Amino acid sequence: MVIVMTPEATAEDVARIVEKVESVGGEAFVSKGVVRTIIGLVGDIDSFHHLNLRGMAGVGDVHRISDPYKLVSRQHHAGRSTVWVRGVPIGPDTFTFIAGPCAVESRAQTLEAAEMAKAAGATLMRGGAFKPRTSPYAFQGLGVEGLEILSSVREATGLPVVTEVVDARDVAVVAEHADMLQVGTRNMANFGLLQAVGESGRPVLLKRGMTATIEEWLMAAEYIAQRGNLDVVLCERGIRTFEPATRNTLDISAVPVVQATSHLPIIVDPSHAAGRKDLIVPLSRAAIAVGADGVIVDVHPDPESALCDGPQALLGADLRALAQAVRQLPPMVGRVDASTLSRTPVVPR
Amino acid sequence: MVIVMTPEATAEDVARIVEKVESVGGEAFVSKGVVRTIIGLVGDIDSFHHLNLRGMAGVGDVHRISDPYKLVSRQHHAGRSTVWVRGVPIGPDTFTFIAGPCAVESRAQTLEAAEMAKAAGATLMRGGAFKPRTSPYAFQGLGVEGLEILSSVREATGLPVVTEVVDARDVAVVAEHADMLQVGTRNMANFGLLQAVGESGRPVLLKRGMTATIEEWLMAAEYIAQRGNLDVVLCERGIRTFEPATRNTLDISAVPVVQATSHLPIIVDPSHAAGRKDLIVPLSRAAIAVGADGVIVDVHPDPESALCDGPQALLGADLRALAQAVRQLPPMVGRVDASTLSRTPVVPR
Amino acid sequence: MVIVMTPEATAEDVARIVEKVESVGGEAFVSKGVVRTIIGLVGDIDSFHHLNLRGMAGVGDVHRISDPYKLVSRQHHAGRSTVWVRGVPIGPDTFTFIAGPCAVESRAQTLEAAEMAKAAGATLMRGGAFKPRTSPYAFQGLGVEGLEILSSVREATGLPVVTEVVDARDVAVVAEHADMLQVGTRNMANFGLLQAVGESGRPVLLKRGMTATIEEWLMAAEYIAQRGNLDVVLCERGIRTFEPATRNTLDISAVPVVQATSHLPIIVDPSHAAGRKDLIVPLSRAAIAVGADGVIVDVHPDPESALCDGPQALLGADLRALAQAVRQLPPMVGRVDASTLSRTPVVPR
Amino acid sequence: MVIVMTPEATAEDVARIVEKVESVGGEAFVSKGVVRTIIGLVGDIDSFHHLNLRGMAGVGDVHRISDPYKLVSRQHHAGRSTVWVRGVPIGPDTFTFIAGPCAVESRAQTLEAAEMAKAAGATLMRGGAFKPRTSPYAFQGLGVEGLEILSSVREATGLPVVTEVVDARDVAVVAEHADMLQVGTRNMANFGLLQAVGESGRPVLLKRGMTATIEEWLMAAEYIAQRGNLDVVLCERGIRTFEPATRNTLDISAVPVVQATSHLPIIVDPSHAAGRKDLIVPLSRAAIAVGADGVIVDVHPDPESALCDGPQALLGADLRALAQAVRQLPPMVGRVDASTLSRTPVVPR
Repeated sequence: MVIVMTPEATAEDVARIVEKVESVGGEAFVSKGVVRTIIGLVGDIDSFHHLNLRGMAGVGDVHRISDPYKLVSRQHHAGRSTVWVRGVPIGPDTFTFIAGPCAVESRAQTLEAAEMAKAAGATLMRGGAFKPRTSPYAFQGLGVEGLEILSSVREATGLPVVTEVVDARDVAVVAEHADMLQVGTRNMANFGLLQAVGESGRPVLLKRGMTATIEEWLMAAEYIAQRGNLDVVLCERGIRTFEPATRNTLDISAVPVVQATSHLPIIVDPSHAAGRKDLIVPLSRAAIAVGADGVIVDVHPDPESALCDGPQALLGADLRALAQAVRQLPPMVGRVDASTLSRTPVVPR
Repeated sequence: MVIVMTPEATAEDVARIVEKVESVGGEAFVSKGVVRTIIGLVGDIDSFHHLNLRGMAGVGDVHRISDPYKLVSRQHHAGRSTVWVRGVPIGPDTFTFIAGPCAVESRAQTLEAAEMAKAAGATLMRGGAFKPRTSPYAFQGLGVEGLEILSSVREATGLPVVTEVVDARDVAVVAEHADMLQVGTRNMANFGLLQAVGESGRPVLLKRGMTATIEEWLMAAEYIAQRGNLDVVLCERGIRTFEPATRNTLDISAVPVVQATSHLPIIVDPSHAAGRKDLIVPLSRAAIAVGADGVIVDVHPDPESALCDGPQALLGADLRALAQAVRQLPPMVGRVDASTLSRTPVVPR
Repeated sequence: MVIVMTPEATAEDVARIVEKVESVGGEAFVSKGVVRTIIGLVGDIDSFHHLNLRGMAGVGDVHRISDPYKLVSRQHHAGRSTVWVRGVPIGPDTFTFIAGPCAVESRAQTLEAAEMAKAAGATLMRGGAFKPRTSPYAFQGLGVEGLEILSSVREATGLPVVTEVVDARDVAVVAEHADMLQVGTRNMANFGLLQAVGESGRPVLLKRGMTATIEEWLMAAEYIAQRGNLDVVLCERGIRTFEPATRNTLDISAVPVVQATSHLPIIVDPSHAAGRKDLIVPLSRAAIAVGADGVIVDVHPDPESALCDGPQALLGADLRALAQAVRQLPPMVGRVDASTLSRTPVVPR
Repeated sequence: MVIVMTPEATAEDVARIVEKVESVGGEAFVSKGVVRTIIGLVGDIDSFHHLNLRGMAGVGDVHRISDPYKLVSRQHHAGRSTVWVRGVPIGPDTFTFIAGPCAVESRAQTLEAAEMAKAAGATLMRGGAFKPRTSPYAFQGLGVEGLEILSSVREATGLPVVTEVVDARDVAVVAEHADMLQVGTRNMANFGLLQAVGESGRPVLLKRGMTATIEEWLMAAEYIAQRGNLDVVLCERGIRTFEPATRNTLDISAVPVVQATSHLPIIVDPSHAAGRKDLIVPLSRAAIAVGADGVIVDVHPDPESALCDGPQALLGADLRALAQAVRQLPPMVGRVDASTLSRTPVVPR
């Protein structure tokens, strides 16, 4: 930590800070500049946090130097992790393709979408039973009935299930049916939910808050990790900017930035970032090339009748183009397409 | 609703849309342009929502024309509402000053802050017992013990209590002690929590999500209203932008924008918007002048030792300047300072 | 300046930096932390800039401590400045109301708008002869003919003229007719233009770039000041955010932030920030209350026929409400309405 | 165009609009809704623009339907264009790699950087002689001397030169030495400069304004095209967001979005977007995969001593990795690496 004093700070102000830092066992190095004094702190950063140094007289600014997260940082965990979802890996050596309908509407629709996904090379199936919707008048999902459909489709197709949980009170029932729990963009800072999924015993897919910084996102992952669950996969899904041509702006740079500071896997959701079907294939290609550990996309057998996000769901030629990209591009960046791995078959639970 | 067809749309595409709209009892007016065709829809907008028109062939864009919220809109409720919090009004005729510490740390600190607030003209007291913090390693609040302190300080000072609830599972216990439930910026889109406070029987202070549009914020209020609770006060607290000089950018224009479209009261939180003590007084003056129904600010008897947001807490000369502004400016914009109203004394519950 | 080394930096990396800093006469204080080393630099900051320290091996980050601008900073010029525009002050003791049409369309329209402005209490007239427009197909202004109209209207009304210059090649001709040169939001970083107005001998109204940080804006003012022209007035006109309800988001906090770090006057343009007529009066009130040194607003005798920004131009009841605010509110924040000052009459040049 | 009337609009308001539209030869289709009336306009959009419909009584909103740009649109020019820079193509069939130092510092440094670039597969050389800098105290470039160095290095290496012009008054001299004129992010809305390069007879590289929407960017290209110059290449270089981990946020989606609406080529600048050397290679790979027509990157023989943007300049292993990506990836997305094309040798002018 570095404390920058204001130009008006007195020698007494500096002395009080040094004393306070030393009172918790830290060391303070004072550098007097022409205009300002700088104090470098050495010692246990957590103990410094409780000193409220920012509130002390004469303090202009406090710069944090090391990362505020620990369990998810690469600082003490240099290699990159692989998270296994019922036998399917998401990590640095593979490229994992996850697909399915935005919302579970019926068994027939879900099964058909899952079969489309599987045929295109997907090894995990997505589908929402609980939908967080901006409007209370929009379709909110089938709830437990949707979870049962997902279970049944998993048995039929062999694809493990990723599904969203929106309320801490639902974690138990969702964990009963799902293989991976998704925390959505609107809930990235719902700390009660983060703690609940941290105790669920299931891997977690943590979407980036649509206006969260990467650091805040990693802090959210730290909440989950702190409850003993390190099986967290991050998902970049676009951030809010002034550009109206896409629903959000896919922050593709977040992939290498996260990989440089955290050991957790990171995948990309081009469907929700763009909100436009015509961008899914190029953005998926970009995700593979930038080094993402996977992509998650919306597919639907009949987008015109979809109850949720129809305009971004893939089918037909687009889905074939995506399937081809998922087969051909990962080897160019040193990865194995996860669908080509042999895997222990899924058995009903 | 207006549907704009793509330049490539066929006459058949248009006919299918007209047919679909008419199938739910709506009317469709077709205007053929040189390049594009436009279809204006007339009828029940909710029935149109379920048609997933965006997903149909030939559709380029769908423009919504009327507001997506109803209960909180001025469209069917022209006057502006007053919300009463244990006898204290927040609404168009008054200006309400709410103050207190960011976090409840002890009974002594809370009582002292509440007395500072009251002396400065505050008629409601704020203070956090449950704190949503970005870091799992930061102080998370005293919980139920904090609520009991707030109750006890209310009895001592007569100031009704506004406090945050961060988890739907805590709504009952918070409602037992608090006079107004605050939903914080990170939870604006936590729909389970919104529904729970909507059923709590207490007035709600709904902060704007730090990156929510005004429309999304009003939709969040609609979630609460839909559960039968129209006692919702909105609170503008700054939005996330690229400007680093302030923690967030106070969107002062949101006050008149909200007042033009919703009947709900709206107040301003300059402390969390700016994150800097030196801006609280000028921003509070601006809030009064722009027509806000109140302000909510952090005060602390000893900001240097505060466990939360010390750098933005007011005391001494700044608090006196704010007290003066709250007395002098509201009459200039046709309002009564709420602290000058006679009021039924608060009796212990 | 503070240099934060990466965790991987070697003792040799640190030694090379110390040596480099000392080679230009600076001092370097090294603080070794558990994970990282921090180096505080003391000495002439300009000489450090040329060292390209960020590019050196082992350097993680470089924090600048003091302001990067000098001539416009309060650091060596503690009081706040007043800029005089042909006898009209803009500064800390007064509140200056500037009004006029967005674009000069004809002598009749400009004269009528100027008379409306004057009747409402304006002491300076605005009006554009050269218009920077996003579309090459939009009205680009009358050019020199517009300047001549402005001169003639100044003679008729006695109001000094503020007008925009968009090209360094036009500075001489605009300076011949105008009393204050405006640099618009799109040209805030047009450094050739900034230098040209810095040599023009006329006071300058420098609008904030619609996505400039406050620091970048002050650096733009520094460009003008560096050419010997300290008569610069800053104008906050809204920044680009994700909120669509207003054209831009008025950053009202920028007023006290600028006043804390720069001695230059600062005014507010609510018309271009909001782009909506109904917000001009409340935002002008907020500007006065927050401590702005003036406001600049669009007025037009016939907004329906305006060739530019008609929807935001005031007339009638709104203009009267604004006139009243400009008379009544400034004394509440310790200012004199500039229109009540006696002033040497304007003589034709 | 579609006009949405306010709920309060009268039949008379509607009639006045219809009349006005018909007065310029347009047709107006009126759809009366339960709450609002919608008017669809058919006819020449330019004539409608001059009507200032937004300013008319009863008008709530005006939605533009077709693109506001023409010459750069695909609407009347369905194929995608190739721009030739002294024999080097930038367009849909190839992938063009442009590299060089941020600033020209000396002949030796420029030559060495150009040779590095060429060895890595670059077919065009970049380098700045006129540098737009935020601070007036920063290095502003060598000016004409820098242009002469670039000419001389072109003769030595055979690489055509792309260089920035920052002032309309310099266009002639820059065009004399350069093969392609770059308009930088700060000047995207400097309309005088756009018109000047539009008349220069040289191809133009138009960077996106760091906070410009894609539509504004295409309108800037339209300014150039309108002066008779259709040899415009767009360059995405990151937009300003709240995320601090990168200097700007590379809007990778802009590539397919632009390609869907404009026939102009588009390349990506990962160096200025990220501002971090470690992201250049992954972002370049993403750019190729998403379908960009080229990339432009900073290289420098000695980044530690660079006078401009040293921290983002590539050399050594990173540059080799980039060279490999440029050779291997373009064929995966159906493109030819432009360096493998035979080309007429560059002759000194």
